[in-house]
Amino acid sequence: GGAQLLIAGPCMIESEQHAMTMAKHISQRVKQYADNFLWVFKASFDKANRSSGDTPRGPGMDEGLRILERIKNEFNVPVLTDIHESYQAKPVAEVVDILQIPAFLCRQTDLLLAAAATGRVVNVKKGQFVAPHDMGRPIEKIREAGNPAAMITERGTSFGYNNLVVDYAGLYVMRQHGAPIIFDTTHCVQLPGGMGKVSGGRREVAPYMAKAAAAFGVDGFFMEVHDNPDQALSDGPNQLNLPLFEELLPRLVAVREAVS
Amino acid sequence: GGAQLLIAGPCMIESEQHAMTMAKHISQRVKQYADNFLWVFKASFDKANRSSGDTPRGPGMDEGLRILERIKNEFNVPVLTDIHESYQAKPVAEVVDILQIPAFLCRQTDLLLAAAATGRVVNVKKGQFVAPHDMGRPIEKIREAGNPAAMITERGTSFGYNNLVVDYAGLYVMRQHGAPIIFDTTHCVQLPGGMGKVSGGRREVAPYMAKAAAAFGVDGFFMEVHDNPDQALSDGPNQLNLPLFEELLPRLVAVREAVS
Amino acid sequence: GGAQLLIAGPCMIESEQHAMTMAKHISQRVKQYADNFLWVFKASFDKANRSSGDTPRGPGMDEGLRILERIKNEFNVPVLTDIHESYQAKPVAEVVDILQIPAFLCRQTDLLLAAAATGRVVNVKKGQFVAPHDMGRPIEKIREAGNPAAMITERGTSFGYNNLVVDYAGLYVMRQHGAPIIFDTTHCVQLPGGMGKVSGGRREVAPYMAKAAAAFGVDGFFMEVHDNPDQALSDGPNQLNLPLFEELLPRLVAVREAVS
Amino acid sequence: GGAQLLIAGPCMIESEQHAMTMAKHISQRVKQYADNFLWVFKASFDKANRSSGDTPRGPGMDEGLRILERIKNEFNVPVLTDIHESYQAKPVAEVVDILQIPAFLCRQTDLLLAAAATGRVVNVKKGQFVAPHDMGRPIEKIREAGNPAAMITERGTSFGYNNLVVDYAGLYVMRQHGAPIIFDTTHCVQLPGGMGKVSGGRREVAPYMAKAAAAFGVDGFFMEVHDNPDQALSDGPNQLNLPLFEELLPRLVAVREAVS
Repeated sequence: GGAQLLIAGPCMIESEQHAMTMAKHISQRVKQYADNFLWVFKASFDKANRSSGDTPRGPGMDEGLRILERIKNEFNVPVLTDIHESYQAKPVAEVVDILQIPAFLCRQTDLLLAAAATGRVVNVKKGQFVAPHDMGRPIEKIREAGNPAAMITERGTSFGYNNLVVDYAGLYVMRQHGAPIIFDTTHCVQLPGGMGKVSGGRREVAPYMAKAAAAFGVDGFFMEVHDNPDQALSDGPNQLNLPLFEELLPRLVAVREAVS
Repeated sequence: GGAQLLIAGPCMIESEQHAMTMAKHISQRVKQYADNFLWVFKASFDKANRSSGDTPRGPGMDEGLRILERIKNEFNVPVLTDIHESYQAKPVAEVVDILQIPAFLCRQTDLLLAAAATGRVVNVKKGQFVAPHDMGRPIEKIREAGNPAAMITERGTSFGYNNLVVDYAGLYVMRQHGAPIIFDTTHCVQLPGGMGKVSGGRREVAPYMAKAAAAFGVDGFFMEVHDNPDQALSDGPNQLNLPLFEELLPRLVAVREAVS
Repeated sequence: GGAQLLIAGPCMIESEQHAMTMAKHISQRVKQYADNFLWVFKASFDKANRSSGDTPRGPGMDEGLRILERIKNEFNVPVLTDIHESYQAKPVAEVVDILQIPAFLCRQTDLLLAAAATGRVVNVKKGQFVAPHDMGRPIEKIREAGNPAAMITERGTSFGYNNLVVDYAGLYVMRQHGAPIIFDTTHCVQLPGGMGKVSGGRREVAPYMAKAAAAFGVDGFFMEVHDNPDQALSDGPNQLNLPLFEELLPRLVAVREAVS
Repeated sequence: GGAQLLIAGPCMIESEQHAMTMAKHISQRVKQYADNFLWVFKASFDKANRSSGDTPRGPGMDEGLRILERIKNEFNVPVLTDIHESYQAKPVAEVVDILQIPAFLCRQTDLLLAAAATGRVVNVKKGQFVAPHDMGRPIEKIREAGNPAAMITERGTSFGYNNLVVDYAGLYVMRQHGAPIIFDTTHCVQLPGGMGKVSGGRREVAPYMAKAAAAFGVDGFFMEVHDNPDQALSDGPNQLNLPLFEELLPRLVAVREAVS
């Protein structure tokens, strides 16, 4: 019962105009599921770990926060973004409701502590190199810093080279940490480094992965959505387009009911 | 729509009495789902690749076939068993409806051809070391031998040592082979070699894995069921007990409807 | 000190003429290393688990044994070949000195027992899905059958899809089993299924892998050698050509001395 | 020919006294290998990504740099340390000769650029989740920032949970990037998270791994050394003790000669 977290938005703040447009698209589509999903708008101001130095990174922190604040106010929606170095935690927390720790950085103690100190909810993505039972450690670091509001997001585990696998059984293991488990629908179908200078992905598989996670029983969903993913400035191959997003929501609701 | 395959039975034919008892238990529980599941009784006459030479293997082929035939007749149920060397295909096919190729043996050409030659349905378990896109090869070997009735069963993929992971995205990839995809609910939570002389397992996770597979959309389920798995002569840690089995069936039906 | 085992020959008996030619080539090149290597000629009479059913398998058991016997006599060299079903153990053991168990089959109890019963040396390839500490189990099966002469050959471990990795640290772990550890120089650089209907490979890396194994300290080497690997009927991409083979032998000797 | 890089020192600056003692111990042992190894002293001022928040992190940047500078001057040795956020690059580069990028952070563009901008040598540890062919990307980021002096250090790849494997074949692949390849002798035998709150390790295997890397042909070695590793404040299970370190050096020299 109750509404689940639905973290949705474009991978990157590509422009103020585009971010606003995406917020509008998503807002229109989630409205009718208000009993099922609590929507949180997501977008990154800086893609700080792109495979290559040649690819776009985003508008930067100051401009990004201005745009996120505008969306927060105009759409009356909580917002989430990711931080990369500890100095960013404080200014970002003045705007966003959920601070996200990228998967590669999930063991960086200073970053976790800086995020924890803001008092905001902290969403830690599970490192591609971290065992499910070990995800208790970053959560403890946050709690021991006095912040009880930590979440874990599953986004796939290293499986050979240029491939990820989702260990659904690991979702069960992670429940023991007592933190909400969010399922990242779109990064889990990424093919890291699989296209040379950028990562590949399998957008068409993402909805299946989300439905499976709903059947497994997770506490919320994360998904990147773009109105024209083939032209997206980052993560194009795995972002959902709007028709896939729209079709997915009622399926997730139905599957959740089927296992309740 | 339509009934899905439900391959269910104890891992090993522990005795004639026990196999009959298990068939009765399962029969009683699947009866009410006749519109949803076509039950096939499963049990092995020989555990031919046990981790250790010290552990029980089963009654052998002749005695095992006699028991399977009795169950087939008394319960009016199709039966499935696995074969290990090519000479077994012909005598086994005189009794069983589906010949199963064990995962370790899924690339043994002679075994596949001998199974194909019987004209029976051949269920090939996906090797723990085989990529989803490569599972077309054993299916082709069977088809080129004139037998169109090949199925693929997912039972998990090697992930480091003493662990398996199910690549649900691989279920999508395997659809391209044009063969039914069966989900092995109980071997996929095995921990191979994880208990020294025998393999460990995580029975409590198995129902979640099956529900996730139902949401993903598979063509049938395989599951080992035991009335007292802690005393089972093989695969105890991952076989479903009867309450778990009973609770799982309506959930699988509901999830399937949710994604249809 | 002492000579190490050097198992070398073509992957497949392509023809009587070719097998004889390869034996001659290898014989000429190993002669000067008689103090360092005890050469065993290796060739398969049946590639019983080829990826695809369309590719050549070899001359079969009877014809293959005739050719192996001729090589054994004419070159005064022990011979090794692999078996695939238990009925082959007895006739094969009448000719060959070392029976080899393929990696996929390393847990097939009947095959191990049939090989053990011949009294010949049994070389068990480590399954791509088996942990180093678990390789004690097949060795025990052979010993408990009364045959003390079991060896383990490392040939790489599943690492994601279509790739293998050699866990050199696992060589250390496997020493505890008290059996000689042989390093398979050429299968460890295989890319299983990586070329569609056949497996790919990286021949140019194989000598480096062998030198690393020599430095680690193994008890012998296995390597497939072909006078024209690009035209080989199987495993072309990873077999050594004759120049690579010839250059490798003195390096292995030198490295072994460096760590003694 | 020529001297190879030998990066050696304790994992953490445990105290000024201990760091000085270790520098003295190592200095005495490397002296006689001046033709073979160019020693660089290594120690971390901050273990910034420890598994648990409860474990010691080190003296911090200011105090750490003071101690490294003292060692640099008193022992006339180049020094290396690792940085974790971009603001550290400039002050650290005023003291150290080689800036090291931790493996988890090898894709953090700002950190790589800040390190590159100092003009110092930048040693990038290969992420546990990065394919060998993809390690060209961080090296390019550094070079495109105008710094040609980038190195790659292999320290193992994620292999299942709580385990690493070294893909020696990947060393061959990484040569194409045109940067020196350093082999991390002691982290590659780490068992990440394997002891609950801290990582485990297999110190006794480390020398074998280094000798194998020498035979493979690398450009230098990295190894953590401690006079009492069982009492070390971090990475105790995998640091070399002084006898292992002392025995290893002549072996590495001999193996290198054997393959030259």
